[in-house]
Amino acid sequence: MSQTSKNIAIIGSGLVGSLLAIYLKRHGHSITVFDRRPDIRNIEFSGRSINLAMSNRGWKSLREVGLETEIKKIAIPLDKRAMHLVGQTEYYQKYGKEGEAIWSISRGVLNRKMIDLAENAGVIFKFEEKVWDVDLPEAKLYTGDTEKGHWEEYQFNLVFGCDGAFSRVRHKMQRRSRFDYSQDFIDVGYKELTIPANTDGTHKLDKNSFHIWPRGKFMLIAMPNLDGSFTCTLFMPFEGEVSFEILKTKEQAKSFFLTYFPNVMQVMDDLLLDFFKNPTSAMVTMKCYPWTYWDKVALVGDSAHAVVPFYGQGMNAGFEDINVLNQIIEKHGDDWEAIFQEYQKERKPNADAIAELSYRNFLEMSSKTADPKFLLQKKIEKLFAARHPEKWIPAYSRVTFSDQPYSEALALGDAQEAIMQKVMEIPEIESKWDSKEIEDTILSLL
Amino acid sequence: MSQTSKNIAIIGSGLVGSLLAIYLKRHGHSITVFDRRPDIRNIEFSGRSINLAMSNRGWKSLREVGLETEIKKIAIPLDKRAMHLVGQTEYYQKYGKEGEAIWSISRGVLNRKMIDLAENAGVIFKFEEKVWDVDLPEAKLYTGDTEKGHWEEYQFNLVFGCDGAFSRVRHKMQRRSRFDYSQDFIDVGYKELTIPANTDGTHKLDKNSFHIWPRGKFMLIAMPNLDGSFTCTLFMPFEGEVSFEILKTKEQAKSFFLTYFPNVMQVMDDLLLDFFKNPTSAMVTMKCYPWTYWDKVALVGDSAHAVVPFYGQGMNAGFEDINVLNQIIEKHGDDWEAIFQEYQKERKPNADAIAELSYRNFLEMSSKTADPKFLLQKKIEKLFAARHPEKWIPAYSRVTFSDQPYSEALALGDAQEAIMQKVMEIPEIESKWDSKEIEDTILSLL
Repeated sequence: MSQTSKNIAIIGSGLVGSLLAIYLKRHGHSITVFDRRPDIRNIEFSGRSINLAMSNRGWKSLREVGLETEIKKIAIPLDKRAMHLVGQTEYYQKYGKEGEAIWSISRGVLNRKMIDLAENAGVIFKFEEKVWDVDLPEAKLYTGDTEKGHWEEYQFNLVFGCDGAFSRVRHKMQRRSRFDYSQDFIDVGYKELTIPANTDGTHKLDKNSFHIWPRGKFMLIAMPNLDGSFTCTLFMPFEGEVSFEILKTKEQAKSFFLTYFPNVMQVMDDLLLDFFKNPTSAMVTMKCYPWTYWDKVALVGDSAHAVVPFYGQGMNAGFEDINVLNQIIEKHGDDWEAIFQEYQKERKPNADAIAELSYRNFLEMSSKTADPKFLLQKKIEKLFAARHPEKWIPAYSRVTFSDQPYSEALALGDAQEAIMQKVMEIPEIESKWDSKEIEDTILSLL
Repeated sequence: MSQTSKNIAIIGSGLVGSLLAIYLKRHGHSITVFDRRPDIRNIEFSGRSINLAMSNRGWKSLREVGLETEIKKIAIPLDKRAMHLVGQTEYYQKYGKEGEAIWSISRGVLNRKMIDLAENAGVIFKFEEKVWDVDLPEAKLYTGDTEKGHWEEYQFNLVFGCDGAFSRVRHKMQRRSRFDYSQDFIDVGYKELTIPANTDGTHKLDKNSFHIWPRGKFMLIAMPNLDGSFTCTLFMPFEGEVSFEILKTKEQAKSFFLTYFPNVMQVMDDLLLDFFKNPTSAMVTMKCYPWTYWDKVALVGDSAHAVVPFYGQGMNAGFEDINVLNQIIEKHGDDWEAIFQEYQKERKPNADAIAELSYRNFLEMSSKTADPKFLLQKKIEKLFAARHPEKWIPAYSRVTFSDQPYSEALALGDAQEAIMQKVMEIPEIESKWDSKEIEDTILSLL
C-alpha cells in the first residue's frame, strides 16, 4: 500500500537512525534526523573504533535498499574463528558452510557512509541539536543548548527514537504507567586495544579470522580493519582476582599481559599506553515494553532492546527491526497505529530471544570453554551436524546465517540442548562419542 | 557507637520518610524533610484512603522509637480472613495463633500522626518544595517551582531518598553506569470502593476480619476503618473477558456487580458513582541496585524496592529497612560508607525475597484459589502445622508474624513446597490426606 507523505523526526544519527531514514525516505516522507553529537564525518577518528560483525540479517536489510555492494567494499569477511590457547599453536574453526562468513566493519567508517547515503537521498540532518523533551501524544520535540535555556519547538507527524541504549525518547515513555523496563549490567567490562598494521600495510595476524584468546573468566578478541590493523577488545571482570580493578600500575598491566597474552603483547606497540588511556566500559541488557506510543512514536534498535555484544547481533537486530517495520508499513499503508502495534508485537519476542542468546554466550564464554564435558558436547554436535546437515542446524548458524526469527532459533536451540543433555548422560560417552550408536541415539531423539 | 551530628535531607514525607526522620533525629542529627506535595495534615481527606496492614515488622520498628502504643490507638486488629464465596455463607480462616493479627490502618491517618510526631521531635518539614535535581557526590539538592525556573541550592552531608516507587533520587542514580534497574507492571489494576458505616457508626461486616471475595481472575477485598466504614479494593485485569476495559457504562458495571458481588453491592451506597469517579491504578514491582551512593545518598523503602500489594508487606518492609539501618548505624558510628554498604548488602536479598513472595501471592490469588488440588494441599499443610507447630511454620506466618529475614522465609517456604509436591503425588491422596501415613511421610521428608 502507498503512503501519504508525513513529516517525520528521527532521534539519533547512528547506524539504525541513518538506515531507517533511508528506508522511510523511499516512501516519500520528509525526514529530519536530530543528533546531540557533531557530524561524525567531520570528526577525526583513527578507523580503530569498535568493530561490528555484520551478518545475514544486517546484509539483508542493506540489500533491500540497494546498499549491500557499496557497504561490502568497506568490510572484511571472516569465515572462521582463530583460537589462541595458552601453550598451543593457533587453530581454526569454520563458522559455517562454504561461503558463509561474518564481516568485520568499523562503526565509524560505516556510520559516515550511511549518513552520506541518507543525505544524498534528501534526508535533513541536524547535528549538535539535543532533544531535551518529547511530547508523546502530540509528536512534538523540544531542543536547545541547555536543559534550562531556551528550547526550540518542532511539530512532527511521527517520531522515531533511534537514540540507543540510554534513549531520551524511551526515557520519556518510561515515566508513564504500565511501561515495563529493565537494565541489567554484567560484572564484566571491556577495553579497546590495537594491533597496528605491518609497515607495508599488511595484517599481523590472519586477516580473514575472528581471533579469540579465551582465558576462562576473561578473554581477548581481535577483528581486522581495512588499514591492516586489528581492533582488539579485552573482556574482564571489573572486580575480583583477575580484574580491571587490580591492574593499577603499568607494571601490573605488563605482568598481566606477559602471563596471559605473551604473543599478543609482542605485536601491540602501544599496549600499556592504550590500556591506561582507553576507558573501561560497561555492558548492559536493556528490555522494555511497549515500544510505541499510539500512532505517534516508536523505538527502533538499541533504544528498544540493548544486548550484550557476545553474539555480535546488536546492529544486525536493529537493522532487522527496520526491515520488518518496512514490510509492515507496506502492508498497512497509512494506518500507523496498526503498523506500530504489529511492529512491536512481532519484534518484542525476537528482541527478548537475542538478548537471552547474547547473555548465554557471555556465560558460555566465561565459564564453559574450559570444561572438557562442554567441549566434548560441542564436538558431538559438530560431527552430527556434518553427517546430517539438514537435521541439525547449529543455533549459531540459525542466528548468524539465516533470517529465521530469533525466537525460533532460541526455541530450536533449547530443544537441541535437551537432546544433548540426554546424550551426555550416556555411560562412557567419552569413548564412544563418535560411534554409530550415539548417532542413532540423536536421530531417535530428534 | 555515638555519632557526629550531620545535616541530613530526607526526600519524601510519606510513612517511611517520616519514620526515618524520627529515628535519625534521636541520634542528634539536623533533619529537613522535603516533599513536593502539600502538608497532608492540611488536606481534607475522608479517612477512606488506601488501607494498610501493619504486621510484626512494622510494629517492631515503631516500638523501638516508642510509638507502638500511640499508633495502635488508630488501628484495628484483624485476626482472620472472612471468605465470601459465591452461593455460600461466609467462613473464617484464622491468620495465626491466638493473639496474632494484622492491623488495618488508614494511610492518611497514620501519615498525619507520624508527621506530627516527627515535628514534635524537632524535624523540619518543607512541603510543596519539589526536588528537581540531586548532586550525588556532593549531597546537594536543587528545588524550585518549575523545572526551567529558578532553583534553590541546598548543601547537606547526607541525603535519603524516601520518595517512593517513582523516586526522583533513584532516577538520578539510574542514569549512571552499572546501575541495575527494573520496573514490571502486572496486567491487573485496582480501584478503591467504599462500604459506608451503619447510621449508628457500627461496621456493616465483621470488624475484625480481612474480607475477601475471590472470583478467580479478579477479587474484591475490604478492610475496616475506625469510622465504621470499610475501604474496599477491586482487583481486576485491565483488559480481557472480565476487565476494567469492558465496564464502560453504569449498566455494565451494575450487571457486573449483580453477577459477581450481589451481597456487597447492597451495602455499597455510592458504588456506581465511585466506580466511575475513582481512578483505576496500576501495580508495579520495582527493583534496583545499588541503593546507595558513596557515603552521601541512600534509598529507603519503596524508592529502593516497590512490591505488588498482595502480601500486605510494602510498608512493613520499608519500616524494617529503617530498623535494620539503625542497628547498622549503632555499630559503625560515623563511618557512613560502611553503614551504607552493609545496609544495602543486608537488605537487598530480603527486598528481592518479599518482591518474589508478593508476586507469587498475586499468581496464587489469580489462578490457584479455585484449584481443588491446591486447596487440598493447603488443608494438609494446615493439619500438619496444627499437629507439629514447631516443625511446620507456614510461610505466611514467618513473613507476617516474625522478623525472620524475608529471604529465609522464602527459602524455607520453597523447601516446604518441595515436600508438599511429593506428598501431592502420593496415589489416592484425596482419600487419605488426613491419615497417619501422610503425617509420617511429611515427618520423614523434613
